[in-house]
Amino acid sequence: MPMIGTLTTTERVLRVRLRDGGAAGEERDDELAVEEPLEIRIDGQSWSITMRTPGDDLDLVAGFLVGEGVITSRAHLASLGLPAGALDGNSVNAVLAPGATPPSEAAARHSVTTSACGICGTESIDAIEKQARWDLADDAGTVSAGVLAELPDRLRGAQAIFDTTGGVHAAGLFTAAGDLLCVREDVGRHNAVDKVVGWALRQDLLPLRGTVLQVSGRASFELVQKARLAGIPVLAAVGAPSSLSRDLADSSGLTLVGFSRSAGFNVYTHPHRVVLP
Amino acid sequence: MPMIGTLTTTERVLRVRLRDGGAAGEERDDELAVEEPLEIRIDGQSWSITMRTPGDDLDLVAGFLVGEGVITSRAHLASLGLPAGALDGNSVNAVLAPGATPPSEAAARHSVTTSACGICGTESIDAIEKQARWDLADDAGTVSAGVLAELPDRLRGAQAIFDTTGGVHAAGLFTAAGDLLCVREDVGRHNAVDKVVGWALRQDLLPLRGTVLQVSGRASFELVQKARLAGIPVLAAVGAPSSLSRDLADSSGLTLVGFSRSAGFNVYTHPHRVVLP
Repeated sequence: MPMIGTLTTTERVLRVRLRDGGAAGEERDDELAVEEPLEIRIDGQSWSITMRTPGDDLDLVAGFLVGEGVITSRAHLASLGLPAGALDGNSVNAVLAPGATPPSEAAARHSVTTSACGICGTESIDAIEKQARWDLADDAGTVSAGVLAELPDRLRGAQAIFDTTGGVHAAGLFTAAGDLLCVREDVGRHNAVDKVVGWALRQDLLPLRGTVLQVSGRASFELVQKARLAGIPVLAAVGAPSSLSRDLADSSGLTLVGFSRSAGFNVYTHPHRVVLP
Repeated sequence: MPMIGTLTTTERVLRVRLRDGGAAGEERDDELAVEEPLEIRIDGQSWSITMRTPGDDLDLVAGFLVGEGVITSRAHLASLGLPAGALDGNSVNAVLAPGATPPSEAAARHSVTTSACGICGTESIDAIEKQARWDLADDAGTVSAGVLAELPDRLRGAQAIFDTTGGVHAAGLFTAAGDLLCVREDVGRHNAVDKVVGWALRQDLLPLRGTVLQVSGRASFELVQKARLAGIPVLAAVGAPSSLSRDLADSSGLTLVGFSRSAGFNVYTHPHRVVLP
């Protein structure tokens, strides 16, 4: 999806570069990833503000709503667009349709990424399992170890903004054969995943059975939450998982891969989906 | 500060390790950084839930309140501790004292990290400058380029959890001479900074004039916000800054260093504080 309005994804600035302990200080141009607030409205009500890299904002909001357990199909959205009076591109309004599960007022009091959480990890996991509309455990999809090992490089190769800024995260949705379906970049790891999931929702592809989501950073709890609610059976992260992300993956039937590199990776849960040569 | 209750910072799990494209799949023990929800209460009211690595939770909450513009001195806290009925260590209640600026109800509707934000970057910056209780521009502290280049390795050397898990972020507060004042680790970058700032607040060290904050990840807008409101004049990040973090640093008089490594770094704003050899 093209960007809304005139917002850009990168911006040129001046900076002083120092190398070798500051032997030389030269002033040069540099390119930074843009970070701007985006207001998410639900049925016209301001719901949340998130910092993101502009671009694919409608996807971001659609994917965000999937990750919060509000929608699972594009039929659950009556409309998605810029609200009247806020056409600058930094607000998006989602009007829910029958079938959607409007978020509770209590959820609004909490932060974007943790609205489903209780006050302990087990409650957090239970809350997400209650929101889920499909099982992951019955997803019979598998992926070969060789394909999995190639995904970090394929994701890196598909990144456009990272090359110029060195400062954005990426999420890539792949088929089990390793073909790229969708890649998105953002200063926020969670936003990159939301944009991928929102793209898939708008293509009416949920649940994303048989796919693999490769992410550039750590596998935090919220990323497993987003993958789980989008019906993605395999999540691979270049970085480490946390204890709670592992526990959620374990209980929800999701295969969680960490430290994924071309030389190998660790499988933390449900390793039956990873096929050895 | 010792950990509250029986919560741990790391956890042992079983995982399958695959190397060289999956030639061998061996099952082994692995250690993960713990991630658990923490409920932040203000004056007894549930305010926000954040995912964090347990440990230094009182510091986390104190630092969080500094970063939200609520407090700037330990005198602004009447008490800080586990609330009655929630002694498991996953809730912390902060009772504000005269002099504190209680957050607005509107702020509660937004996410933890962006409660100060308007709907465009300039508004976000204005909101933070309005919250700030001291100027950074008049901080005459300087740091040598040689010391700055050493900080990433010093931070890495001081990390305890990273060595076993490979999966946590760190923030280290240093003097201009490069001496470590405080280091904290967490699965969340912002939590690590909150824990450092909260430690400083409890030592009554705010504003943190003449110090340098070194962080392990990117320099996002929220990290610059937290440094700025704690009165830290120099923020150095191993990763890239974003456009908005640069703009906030620029307007608030903060020296922002990015891509900081032993071989050199970039200075994006107010380079006068970095002394060349």
